[in-house]
Amino acid sequence: MEQKSYNRDTRQTRFAILGAGALGGFYGAMLHRAGHEVNFLLHSDLDVVRREGLRVRSAVHGDCDVVEPRAWGRVEDMPACDVVLVALKSTQNGLLAQLLPPVLAPGGCVLVMQNGLGVEDDAAAVVGAGRVVGGLAFLCSHKVGPGRIEHLDYGDVRLGEYGEGLAARGITDRLRRLGEDFAAAGVGVELEADLLLARWKKLVWNVPYNGLSVVLNATTDRLMGDPATRELCERLMREVVAGAAATGRTIEPAFVEKMLRDTDKMVAYKPSMKLDYDAGRPMELEAIYGNPLRLAARHGAELPGLAMLYHQLRFLDARRVGGQPRH
Amino acid sequence: MEQKSYNRDTRQTRFAILGAGALGGFYGAMLHRAGHEVNFLLHSDLDVVRREGLRVRSAVHGDCDVVEPRAWGRVEDMPACDVVLVALKSTQNGLLAQLLPPVLAPGGCVLVMQNGLGVEDDAAAVVGAGRVVGGLAFLCSHKVGPGRIEHLDYGDVRLGEYGEGLAARGITDRLRRLGEDFAAAGVGVELEADLLLARWKKLVWNVPYNGLSVVLNATTDRLMGDPATRELCERLMREVVAGAAATGRTIEPAFVEKMLRDTDKMVAYKPSMKLDYDAGRPMELEAIYGNPLRLAARHGAELPGLAMLYHQLRFLDARRVGGQPRH
Repeated sequence: MEQKSYNRDTRQTRFAILGAGALGGFYGAMLHRAGHEVNFLLHSDLDVVRREGLRVRSAVHGDCDVVEPRAWGRVEDMPACDVVLVALKSTQNGLLAQLLPPVLAPGGCVLVMQNGLGVEDDAAAVVGAGRVVGGLAFLCSHKVGPGRIEHLDYGDVRLGEYGEGLAARGITDRLRRLGEDFAAAGVGVELEADLLLARWKKLVWNVPYNGLSVVLNATTDRLMGDPATRELCERLMREVVAGAAATGRTIEPAFVEKMLRDTDKMVAYKPSMKLDYDAGRPMELEAIYGNPLRLAARHGAELPGLAMLYHQLRFLDARRVGGQPRH
Repeated sequence: MEQKSYNRDTRQTRFAILGAGALGGFYGAMLHRAGHEVNFLLHSDLDVVRREGLRVRSAVHGDCDVVEPRAWGRVEDMPACDVVLVALKSTQNGLLAQLLPPVLAPGGCVLVMQNGLGVEDDAAAVVGAGRVVGGLAFLCSHKVGPGRIEHLDYGDVRLGEYGEGLAARGITDRLRRLGEDFAAAGVGVELEADLLLARWKKLVWNVPYNGLSVVLNATTDRLMGDPATRELCERLMREVVAGAAATGRTIEPAFVEKMLRDTDKMVAYKPSMKLDYDAGRPMELEAIYGNPLRLAARHGAELPGLAMLYHQLRFLDARRVGGQPRH
């Protein structure tokens, strides 16, 4: 892991942002403000955003509205871009085969900024593993209406090269340039020599809190306030560490302790999966549970608590009816 | 396991029934009809039952009301009894230290007819292990009002000698006499040479369906109809089999298959824990989850799925407020 401050050069990168929601809208607006050409692919919000712009209110960075955004309804109409930021939910990755080829410039790369493990595989199957970079966002922002994003806190990204197989890919020039673009836009950046390790570490938090908040209808403070579920969160974290170990990645026990302490300090928080479930949207079950389970199993590690949570969540996901959550 | 038909003799046994709900009310009424002296300990329903009797409607056995029941409000007023049938929920076993001594005759025994594992320990701590018999009821009946029981189906019992340690106790004369009393009352009886094995086998069903029906707010047919939860039920059953094995009890894989098939054939069913939870009553978590987990752990077996379900249920149990369930 490498952390630097970057000197902005005058080079302009042409970005495509697929999915201008809480994540894509925020980073797109930040990159636009920094002088990059940012092309947004929109679906239901297209007309509103063309008429009223993309409005991003940030408690940290001030307002950074995009008054006249390059807003597109079809990738076929978009210019070929240097960086295609995939900011869809991973449950929509089936669309990538249609979305990526028209919008990716020769020599460009796809930045998959999604939760979970194995999410780059879908993009790699379309454009080739060598053209894919993985991004982890540590971001608290919400879409509050069509074309309207509210950024509450955080926003750092971690970027790492993707490749087939488990080997760490190191830090490339491409990764450095991408990091410079984000850093110049005011986004905290860390470059990860080992994307897989970074993804496992993020799962240490995501696995317990996302799933349990849905199954037990509880915010993080409730889960941490009860001794039974606090122990369960810790157990699940240790299973993620075991999964990482099976793929040759070491996560120190102190990291688990830190995640627990950090969560203790958080206010009542609804993880993204809980927001999705409550809104009747599909949950990112494969990215956060199915893929890690299968990867660990291929390397001889069983993760029984994770498997159980995965099965429970699949049951609840299958019962979503017309956007109506159960609770 | 031994199955017989019994010849009724003219001996009358004096029973005490602690807890005249769906289970105690039904078996008490059946034993009363067969000519035994049955003394009911009642709490909230005492006045109604004294005034209107204990009314037991059975689709199988016809009505077997107890018109003028021996209904008591305090154990101190009751006669000393040959058999004290504990038909309370195991969550109330803390009361046994007060309830058992006054009502148990010298030479009498306590029949603990509760779900789960280790439930006899509480009675044994009060009266001594040698005076305790375990009973398993396979019964579908409901309390439909004060002093009013509706028996829907089934009702067989399995009886086994309890003792400290894990050894099977075999079939004693006392067990045979007790079996004869139930059989003469029209109740199907099996005598179990090995109570612990019988309790593990009942847990094969109780562990998956009780807990998952609560956590996922689902009846058995829903759990079996979804491939993810069906697999989860089977996993949990296999963990119970592993727990039994750790204590030297063999349950054949075919038994798991049979439980799954039997449940496939059932109508939409709410297990007792789900009924308790929906009514805002405490759930029998220690009997069905905590005790089996601890016993297995003492013998070197970890049951991770069972442990996870236990933690989830403890969280939900702690959130019960004033009889209001969550769903």
